[in-house]
Amino acid sequence: MGSKGDYRIERDTLGEMKVPADALYGAQTQRAVENFPVSDLRFPRRFIKALGGIKMIAARVNMELEVVDEKKGKAIEQAAKEVMEGKLDEQFVVDIFQTGSGTSTNMNANEVIANRATQILGGEIGSKDVHPNDHVNAGQSSNDVIPTAAHVAACTALIEETLPGLGKLRDALAAKADEFADVVKTGRTHLMDATPVTLGQEFSGYASQIAHGITRVRNALPHLSELAIGGTAVGTGINAHPKFAPKVCAGLSKLFDHAFVEAPNHFEAQAARDALVEASGALRTVAVSMSKIANDIRWLASGPRTGLSEISIPATQPGSSIMPGKVNPVIAESVRQVCAQVMGNDVTIVVAGQFDNFELAVMIPIMTYDLLQSASILGNAATILAEKCVAGTEANRERCLDYAERSPALATVLAPKLGYDKAAELAKKALELDVTVRELVVQEGLMDDKEAAEVLDPAKMTNT
Amino acid sequence: MGSKGDYRIERDTLGEMKVPADALYGAQTQRAVENFPVSDLRFPRRFIKALGGIKMIAARVNMELEVVDEKKGKAIEQAAKEVMEGKLDEQFVVDIFQTGSGTSTNMNANEVIANRATQILGGEIGSKDVHPNDHVNAGQSSNDVIPTAAHVAACTALIEETLPGLGKLRDALAAKADEFADVVKTGRTHLMDATPVTLGQEFSGYASQIAHGITRVRNALPHLSELAIGGTAVGTGINAHPKFAPKVCAGLSKLFDHAFVEAPNHFEAQAARDALVEASGALRTVAVSMSKIANDIRWLASGPRTGLSEISIPATQPGSSIMPGKVNPVIAESVRQVCAQVMGNDVTIVVAGQFDNFELAVMIPIMTYDLLQSASILGNAATILAEKCVAGTEANRERCLDYAERSPALATVLAPKLGYDKAAELAKKALELDVTVRELVVQEGLMDDKEAAEVLDPAKMTNT
Amino acid sequence: MGSKGDYRIERDTLGEMKVPADALYGAQTQRAVENFPVSDLRFPRRFIKALGGIKMIAARVNMELEVVDEKKGKAIEQAAKEVMEGKLDEQFVVDIFQTGSGTSTNMNANEVIANRATQILGGEIGSKDVHPNDHVNAGQSSNDVIPTAAHVAACTALIEETLPGLGKLRDALAAKADEFADVVKTGRTHLMDATPVTLGQEFSGYASQIAHGITRVRNALPHLSELAIGGTAVGTGINAHPKFAPKVCAGLSKLFDHAFVEAPNHFEAQAARDALVEASGALRTVAVSMSKIANDIRWLASGPRTGLSEISIPATQPGSSIMPGKVNPVIAESVRQVCAQVMGNDVTIVVAGQFDNFELAVMIPIMTYDLLQSASILGNAATILAEKCVAGTEANRERCLDYAERSPALATVLAPKLGYDKAAELAKKALELDVTVRELVVQEGLMDDKEAAEVLDPAKMTNT
Amino acid sequence: MGSKGDYRIERDTLGEMKVPADALYGAQTQRAVENFPVSDLRFPRRFIKALGGIKMIAARVNMELEVVDEKKGKAIEQAAKEVMEGKLDEQFVVDIFQTGSGTSTNMNANEVIANRATQILGGEIGSKDVHPNDHVNAGQSSNDVIPTAAHVAACTALIEETLPGLGKLRDALAAKADEFADVVKTGRTHLMDATPVTLGQEFSGYASQIAHGITRVRNALPHLSELAIGGTAVGTGINAHPKFAPKVCAGLSKLFDHAFVEAPNHFEAQAARDALVEASGALRTVAVSMSKIANDIRWLASGPRTGLSEISIPATQPGSSIMPGKVNPVIAESVRQVCAQVMGNDVTIVVAGQFDNFELAVMIPIMTYDLLQSASILGNAATILAEKCVAGTEANRERCLDYAERSPALATVLAPKLGYDKAAELAKKALELDVTVRELVVQEGLMDDKEAAEVLDPAKMTNT
Repeated sequence: MGSKGDYRIERDTLGEMKVPADALYGAQTQRAVENFPVSDLRFPRRFIKALGGIKMIAARVNMELEVVDEKKGKAIEQAAKEVMEGKLDEQFVVDIFQTGSGTSTNMNANEVIANRATQILGGEIGSKDVHPNDHVNAGQSSNDVIPTAAHVAACTALIEETLPGLGKLRDALAAKADEFADVVKTGRTHLMDATPVTLGQEFSGYASQIAHGITRVRNALPHLSELAIGGTAVGTGINAHPKFAPKVCAGLSKLFDHAFVEAPNHFEAQAARDALVEASGALRTVAVSMSKIANDIRWLASGPRTGLSEISIPATQPGSSIMPGKVNPVIAESVRQVCAQVMGNDVTIVVAGQFDNFELAVMIPIMTYDLLQSASILGNAATILAEKCVAGTEANRERCLDYAERSPALATVLAPKLGYDKAAELAKKALELDVTVRELVVQEGLMDDKEAAEVLDPAKMTNT
Repeated sequence: MGSKGDYRIERDTLGEMKVPADALYGAQTQRAVENFPVSDLRFPRRFIKALGGIKMIAARVNMELEVVDEKKGKAIEQAAKEVMEGKLDEQFVVDIFQTGSGTSTNMNANEVIANRATQILGGEIGSKDVHPNDHVNAGQSSNDVIPTAAHVAACTALIEETLPGLGKLRDALAAKADEFADVVKTGRTHLMDATPVTLGQEFSGYASQIAHGITRVRNALPHLSELAIGGTAVGTGINAHPKFAPKVCAGLSKLFDHAFVEAPNHFEAQAARDALVEASGALRTVAVSMSKIANDIRWLASGPRTGLSEISIPATQPGSSIMPGKVNPVIAESVRQVCAQVMGNDVTIVVAGQFDNFELAVMIPIMTYDLLQSASILGNAATILAEKCVAGTEANRERCLDYAERSPALATVLAPKLGYDKAAELAKKALELDVTVRELVVQEGLMDDKEAAEVLDPAKMTNT
Repeated sequence: MGSKGDYRIERDTLGEMKVPADALYGAQTQRAVENFPVSDLRFPRRFIKALGGIKMIAARVNMELEVVDEKKGKAIEQAAKEVMEGKLDEQFVVDIFQTGSGTSTNMNANEVIANRATQILGGEIGSKDVHPNDHVNAGQSSNDVIPTAAHVAACTALIEETLPGLGKLRDALAAKADEFADVVKTGRTHLMDATPVTLGQEFSGYASQIAHGITRVRNALPHLSELAIGGTAVGTGINAHPKFAPKVCAGLSKLFDHAFVEAPNHFEAQAARDALVEASGALRTVAVSMSKIANDIRWLASGPRTGLSEISIPATQPGSSIMPGKVNPVIAESVRQVCAQVMGNDVTIVVAGQFDNFELAVMIPIMTYDLLQSASILGNAATILAEKCVAGTEANRERCLDYAERSPALATVLAPKLGYDKAAELAKKALELDVTVRELVVQEGLMDDKEAAEVLDPAKMTNT
Repeated sequence: MGSKGDYRIERDTLGEMKVPADALYGAQTQRAVENFPVSDLRFPRRFIKALGGIKMIAARVNMELEVVDEKKGKAIEQAAKEVMEGKLDEQFVVDIFQTGSGTSTNMNANEVIANRATQILGGEIGSKDVHPNDHVNAGQSSNDVIPTAAHVAACTALIEETLPGLGKLRDALAAKADEFADVVKTGRTHLMDATPVTLGQEFSGYASQIAHGITRVRNALPHLSELAIGGTAVGTGINAHPKFAPKVCAGLSKLFDHAFVEAPNHFEAQAARDALVEASGALRTVAVSMSKIANDIRWLASGPRTGLSEISIPATQPGSSIMPGKVNPVIAESVRQVCAQVMGNDVTIVVAGQFDNFELAVMIPIMTYDLLQSASILGNAATILAEKCVAGTEANRERCLDYAERSPALATVLAPKLGYDKAAELAKKALELDVTVRELVVQEGLMDDKEAAEVLDPAKMTNT
């Protein structure tokens, strides 16, 4: 290794490269930086954490299996731990739009850890005393490490970000379902006046959607928990110790407190990223649910004077730069944009998921980035919707009841006795005469006041 | 050719096949029928018409260029005309999910036309007196014929189905913009009460969206008008007379009354189907517009008692099997489902559009099917929305005006004088006191009745 | 009821309609026909079967609960059975792009069954002796019936079409994994020469993908098995007997031999169609797998002279209308088009799934149509891929072995001993000198012939 | 305004807020920060530049129209210039998943500019001497400013990033089309051996695709060049001077050197974001083209020993962490991931584009973010593909010619004379006997050596 001014010279199998003098990364990382000036997107913290964790556990297992000596192994372990803990994040400099295997980021990690381990051992950066390939990457290939990191990161993102957010949202909705259990209101189908429901029934439906959504997300975990590690270059495990994979999986399970297993088929595990596609499918199904719920909420809260105005949601910020006093359902709008992004990310993942060929999937970085983004923003949006909107929602009881009583669809309850055709006539007549169905049946002499009040009681029709 | 019972024996380069005795198609078609029992989807009439037209014109040009003799050529011309006119539609029996080049359908056409031409000449079906490849397909390959048919069909679909429908919709919306020019109503932003607009202004926006949409669809025509014909197997034009392509393009332009041109680059013309992707992009942009418009209309018409009820749309059918007297915005719902399908078709087309390799696109049948479907259903939906919904829409003027006067956003007009912060106070106070902003400014002694009525006149604020 | 010429007059709550004289359907169906001339798409057989089954079971339960009398009930039961069995399919005439609740098709069924039941009882068509709403639809609403039919149809489609097809494909791939277990070949990552695998290992990966896919599809069944029936108009069950829903679910479970349950939350069950979105997510994940597999197969079979040519797949049809003797991977192309359509359908379903408002999802027809199409074509494509392609695939063993021996990536096995950098030098030198790595290590004096043959044996590197 | 420790107190119409003491933004921005802790995505530089430019021009026009006095106006102008130039980027702290109108970011700009202008005038931050709404936002609303900024940013992104990248790519491809004009190679259709082409012809097809793509992107500019400014709250222009909009458009045209116009219909201009949908449609069509081209290139370069190996592309980085000496087509992989992201972004934009209601589109931030990302990464990817891959591509002429001569599809040229069926026989026989078609016709006595060499010369068949 030489150095010159602010740069030092590093070397890889293609030759020499200038690298910033204080960089822990080496020639291959630098090549990737220069090859891929595409975007400002990088692998997120959660992925780097998973990658650092894998390298740390791998170092331990390599020592145990006597593939790497204790001295180097310990130094690698410590350096990898620093990667895992985020202490070296600024060293991860490669664009997400890189080689489709993520090799550039695996080598970025290998180079950073090798140089950092060399430092720890008192050596000179760039000396390759600890070698990025021979020591840090021992028993590994980008082709098993990157998919493994993707699965570990995806599992932990779903468990730590998505599911807690959904849990909060389900609970907030369920609490409102209870609170609003006796708020009678009109139902609406096709946006048109229908028979009554309670506001609590509506919120119970939302809560049930999210509860189903939690199951959907959980269903994606088993396939994601299968790890490619041990397959090395093409799935055959060439150059890896046969005990390497099970030991690494055990180590990762303990480290991340989740039961990971060695993939039952290593050829699938490296050639296809279907579990990411499946997980994205679950997330975008939840996004469909949340989009519906957020839309209903903003419509129920619309007004205050020219909308439905059946509920009031918390005023979180002034709504308009020009219209004074306006307050808008901004949380719902934020949530719906999140949902749209999750749906778009899903298509990216589906499109990318097909571009695998033979022994290796080659669209892994963008698939992983988009999935981790979806998992995170969906979880955050669920939390925000729960805490900043649903929790503070109040029913406008009088408005609700007034609508319920005026709905011409109350005539529905008359159909079993009078027949559908006669009931339809009454509903139409009530509209023409601008009276309620209850008023009409009395006017028409079909019932007396008392019977009408009982038969046409909206609360009864909710079957609560 | 032999025959046995209800079958006859036909032969192709892979050997013998049993074919229904009365079928005009031959062995290759039959193989395709047996290879692809996937769905009930077939190339639509419009595509078969284009294919028949191409074969007819090709026959004429082949006679002119002395590639095919007059006797056979005339018979082919007549048989192809019958294909074009739909007389032999039941002979087109191959699933849309077939070989990606559409070769099966090109051969289906070649076989049907060859046998029919043989019949016309008094020969025996299956005798290959007129040969499907050597005569009907002379100077052609599936690889240029099918893309040509796809482009011809797409152009005519856009011109004959999509654009007329959009024209009707734009006109219907523009007519309502005029009719409702003086219907003052509340604006709504974020679904919340905003400053006034006229109903005519809203409809003028819809009309403008569709007018823009028409431009978008027209912009897709030039690339679609470039035809692959003449490139034959791989774009080089092997086995085709150099004058074949320009003459066929001229013939097709006259036949379909649209200016088609020979593709400037035959390698692109066969290897990529980007013009279909582009056209689908235009259609799905229009679908976004129509989805917005249809949604607004159903919301404006919501009620009659518990919704916005600012307009009334025609009652086209009873709305509910259980709720008597209910009428729903069913046309808008039909339209929005069409829009969703067009958006999904677009993704099919995008995904399929990437699967081209080297000299040939190999997802042509499904791309063509989905695009033609989108063009057709979008045009029909536009027509239906125009004729069965927009044309009969009426304004509920009183409701509109009432909302306009009660909107707290009328305070906006006070901001330039009083400042945004003071105006916001007034808007809030009006809500708290349950009065209009006009009533409040008088109560507060800020204006007298007359000034308040003038300053806070919603109609004025519409700037019409 | 009157009649005139080829028409008779039927009546609904909006007034009179002319209906074809021999039609079993009535006024509401006719209105829908006239309202929705959009496409040639109709609800498929499987859906009509489910709908007929629901009506039949409902009639039985209504008799049992004494909601409908035995005479009418028996006639309805028989008529509904005819619907279920497909005997009245030509009476289902409404476009799929109809009202978003599917009310038009529910009323189509109600009218057809009412008129057919009236016939059975000796009455006159159109007389409403058996009434479409009061009798056939008793205890029901489109809003619970159509979602129920959608779920029943989706479950049976997955069970009867998708899963069997996938099972065949998994088995065919697994059989080839065994058969090709000893076919050593080169691996390819990033399309570039990599370390060896066996052809069997590759096929085992494909088989594992499909096995995972089967789990994915099965995971979608529980939510689809929850039925909306019993919720009637808005989920509250207005006008339905409390025992109606559980009894209908029990009857449907028996009829369709699958355990259906009453939806735990009826408000979700009618307001959201999330289970369809979830199921589509599973199908499109499988489509990603199948697209990958089909693409690999066509590449492995590419050639015969200028491609990879590692396998031979069955010649199912002549490939070209212009290039004699050409045979193409048409089954793989058909499969990939199916996969693209499934992916597009998924986006339609996602887009449509969000358009629910309040008590009712209003994009049900198109969601159901697209999901049933996906389930069917994916199952068929899997079967065809298994039977017409995979089953007849043969290995080109010599070509495979030759490639394996010439791959410069064999140098990988030297890295643990010589280090990555030295091994890289050897790999490059082998390419420059146009020798194999084995030849090179002997030339370089690093090993003798025997050791080189042993160390650099591709078969060993596959770890089989 | 008070302050306390590291915070100061700012106030908006909802009350007091703690704001970091040195922040230039105020209460509304702070509320938005707390309301939307969703992601790490922010409006990009290009958007902030457009927004600053609009505020600067608006200040000038407001002075000219005497809406804002010169002293305040000049200060606002200077502060807005600093925003435009990126000097205050760290003050733009609101998440992209915010209110759907982008009001939070408009207010962020208004607050930052107001405080900075106050500073410039020697006042105290937070004093509102220059008021964010009354002065900075004068004549404006978020509802016209944010769409205007979105259009300005989108236009400049397409013009400055996308189109130059595509221009470079088209030129690089066209240069290779010339360079490779005489490199005869085999054609491949369905991945199978076909008749010959030149490598130059293949690259000419790619160049033509990108040339078409440039037209597609340009077609999107006219609609994007229509600006919403002047419509203020709901499109009516309430509180804006009638000359404000045309003057601002003129100013922006000069500032950004592109002809912007006032939207012909202000109601569409605020209620719909169709032009973003249209532009995304163009970008994703280009992505389809680039995905095809990148895929072809990596396949043509596959090998070096077990792939097609018809071209060599530059070695930009070591390919594998485990396989020494491996070099991969990493640029092509990066490009294809970009394309997948652009396709996914397109679906986000389509989904979001439908969620408009009445007078305002409410998914603007995410639509704008995704479109600007697509425009940028597609342009960058095109540049990288041109410069780091295409420009350095070399033809492997011998390999190309060898394949061309061995393709059995050379028999195609015999079909016009011998007929398709006989030619097919020869093609098959050549394969069986493992000879070339040229060798076979001599063996069979159909031609002598000389005639065979002439008739079956692959170069001739390319028609160059």
